[in-house]
Amino acid sequence: MKQLYSKEDTIVALATPAGVGALAVIRLSGRQAIPIAETLTSKKLAAPDTKTLKSYQLFYTKICYPDTNKVLDEVMLSVYHAPRSFTGEDIIEFCCHGSPFIIKELLRLILEKGARIAQAGEFTQRGFLHGKMDLAQAEGIADLIIADSAAAHQLAISQMRGGFSTKIKQLREDIIRLAALLELELDFSEEDVEFADRTDLRRQVITLQNIIQQMAASFRLGNVMKNGFPVAIVGKPNAGKSTLLNAIIDEDRAIVSTIAGTTRDTIEEQKNINGICFRFIDTAGLRETEDAIEKLGIARTLKKIQEAQCILYLFDAQTTSLPELQEAEIDIQAYQIPYYLVGNKIDLVATEKLKVFESNARFLAISAHTKQNLSQLEDALSAHVQAMNVHESQIIVSNARHLHCLQNAANALQIVCNAIDSHLPTEMIASDLREAIYQLGEIVGEITNNDLLDFIFSKFCIGK
Amino acid sequence: MKQLYSKEDTIVALATPAGVGALAVIRLSGRQAIPIAETLTSKKLAAPDTKTLKSYQLFYTKICYPDTNKVLDEVMLSVYHAPRSFTGEDIIEFCCHGSPFIIKELLRLILEKGARIAQAGEFTQRGFLHGKMDLAQAEGIADLIIADSAAAHQLAISQMRGGFSTKIKQLREDIIRLAALLELELDFSEEDVEFADRTDLRRQVITLQNIIQQMAASFRLGNVMKNGFPVAIVGKPNAGKSTLLNAIIDEDRAIVSTIAGTTRDTIEEQKNINGICFRFIDTAGLRETEDAIEKLGIARTLKKIQEAQCILYLFDAQTTSLPELQEAEIDIQAYQIPYYLVGNKIDLVATEKLKVFESNARFLAISAHTKQNLSQLEDALSAHVQAMNVHESQIIVSNARHLHCLQNAANALQIVCNAIDSHLPTEMIASDLREAIYQLGEIVGEITNNDLLDFIFSKFCIGK
Repeated sequence: MKQLYSKEDTIVALATPAGVGALAVIRLSGRQAIPIAETLTSKKLAAPDTKTLKSYQLFYTKICYPDTNKVLDEVMLSVYHAPRSFTGEDIIEFCCHGSPFIIKELLRLILEKGARIAQAGEFTQRGFLHGKMDLAQAEGIADLIIADSAAAHQLAISQMRGGFSTKIKQLREDIIRLAALLELELDFSEEDVEFADRTDLRRQVITLQNIIQQMAASFRLGNVMKNGFPVAIVGKPNAGKSTLLNAIIDEDRAIVSTIAGTTRDTIEEQKNINGICFRFIDTAGLRETEDAIEKLGIARTLKKIQEAQCILYLFDAQTTSLPELQEAEIDIQAYQIPYYLVGNKIDLVATEKLKVFESNARFLAISAHTKQNLSQLEDALSAHVQAMNVHESQIIVSNARHLHCLQNAANALQIVCNAIDSHLPTEMIASDLREAIYQLGEIVGEITNNDLLDFIFSKFCIGK
Repeated sequence: MKQLYSKEDTIVALATPAGVGALAVIRLSGRQAIPIAETLTSKKLAAPDTKTLKSYQLFYTKICYPDTNKVLDEVMLSVYHAPRSFTGEDIIEFCCHGSPFIIKELLRLILEKGARIAQAGEFTQRGFLHGKMDLAQAEGIADLIIADSAAAHQLAISQMRGGFSTKIKQLREDIIRLAALLELELDFSEEDVEFADRTDLRRQVITLQNIIQQMAASFRLGNVMKNGFPVAIVGKPNAGKSTLLNAIIDEDRAIVSTIAGTTRDTIEEQKNINGICFRFIDTAGLRETEDAIEKLGIARTLKKIQEAQCILYLFDAQTTSLPELQEAEIDIQAYQIPYYLVGNKIDLVATEKLKVFESNARFLAISAHTKQNLSQLEDALSAHVQAMNVHESQIIVSNARHLHCLQNAANALQIVCNAIDSHLPTEMIASDLREAIYQLGEIVGEITNNDLLDFIFSKFCIGK
């Protein structure tokens, strides 16, 4: 939050999506939350004795305009007394009728009583600042809300529930312990003792570095689980790429015609296959062309191929010869991205003719038009992601900020090893260990700065 | 509800608007609500002793997939034990993270456990059937959610809170008392006694009929408060009608040009003035034209004028002579709708020239372009609605169904009077009194049929 906004303010926001509905929830947090709610409801909401307050309370009450005493709404109030709340502060939630007019008026009355509208993510930020969760857990909440596949959801909820944080904190403590031994040496530096045996130290640092590198490596999978697995559909004009995209997503998304070069823009559509989100990218057909717009389309195609994690090279099985396919395969291999050679239009081809391709393990035969063998293609892609999978119990990193910190930590540990090997002074070894500790601390928010916090929480939705 | 759906089913629905948000509320009601929630949360939610249950409870809990035990979400559960709930049944409300994926999954799990998706308005209908509210109050809830002005909101909330119902029930009981006296006569018919003095009876019937007619008359205001006050902006081409609409709503809504006949479609926009919603209708300029589309536009204008409750006849004060205006006024008067003669473009006219119009009490001088005197125009319209106003304490009818029943009840009472005057037999008088009782009973739902209920509740939103 910019300094314009004090953390002492009582904040309010609509916590449910805007629009007309049966119910809406308005959330109010801060020191004035209970007094403000009491002026609007004439209920006693302050806990007489928080020690004996066994459970959270729901109150049915009417909300009145304080000036005219006219009734604005009848609502259910949820009361959470600090520190047992999401923000760690007193929270009142008004569950009112889902009328935009009532929401507007209720917010206005609360603002008039001295609250201000919450910034994006400000409730969660307060929860973090009051120690209700660490930073990685807070980021998990934001990911949870936008997760749109089972895989993305499972990653986010495990991060929100703290599995990832526990692992990071444990690694950090292991490094702190090593650093403490070195600090001890520095304290006794005049006596020239070595509390930390250098061979043993190096071994331990390497072990920790390996764990961190493994976590960093899991980002490849984590990113796919969170953001989807990009698959480029490429091939010559009229191979049937747009027909294939439409068949996969079961919609008439891309314009299909028999005219070569119909698709110019790249078109991207998602499909959830076995709980993983796949992003299929239909591209302009690759050919020599004089058409200026089509040329631009082909340039974009080449760029999109580089961003993909898998290429489906689609070819017309009717008209393509084996040498032609082999030539195309060489071009595709240049991208160094996993690929399949997908022969299309097999509903129009004699089975005999397909045999020439079958010696190639990457060959798949389909008909985009009749959807024949489409499920085999999906299974092949699914298996591809499963092959990326890490051990069931391993933590999977899905946040680019975390990856960056992990890479920095691993680098710092590498420098520690190098320093040991070069018999550099204890201070230098200790300093690089501290860098690794710092980087891991930044992931869970034990070390933070306001700019970082502002950046992270600004990506949340209002009311969270 | 169609008979396909049993009232014994446990029903579930998303109660907050669809979309991504911080929170979402899923509402579950019926006999299986608590058992279903217990399978998903492993919390004991059934009240051990409802007599000692002092207040509503909130539980923080995680929701797990029953098969894999994986966590779907961490939620706040609100528990309402029958009969102290909105529907009169056990209700569980899941306040989960506002992620469409989580909402979809949680609904799926609840459906798998035996609930079904609620029909539109089914929660409220159950509340009605369990005597938590009468029918007019239930209709007030639906009106409350869509009310978009202070006036519409106040009508709806007072109806929801039962003020209207109390009045109707009181009237109904008054008529029942009169009917009871007549029924007594019928019981003792052989003895030829008159328990109800006919002169006194007639007087009481007239009093009740007057009250009912007054209520019915309030619909004119109630309908304006609920649905807005329609104001037609009419005038010759190029008088500046579209400029005036844009000025009133402070937006570039209608296309404005110096070419006569620019507006062809009628354009309608709302503006909230002093808590009342005004619907301003910009119309095609009235002139003889050969343009086919413009002709259609003018035909629509004439229709729209008839639907309006006020006409703003806009004329160009620069170019219009007094005789021309007087001629136009005669045409406008033919509609028998209140009107104002609004001289536009006064920023371009000498004050002197305007004086000729000022003898006409309905004349107002404005400049749509500079917005001069626009607030006077708004005040005039506002005063117009205020003049419709009834006594502060009077009930205002805003529901067409209620109006229809009130009119039927008043008619039945008129027939009672006629019957008394014609010395018709007691049975016939009693029968018409019963018709009035029936009509008032239908308003509050003391007398209902399934088709009427289905129709009323189908207009609610899902989840209410």
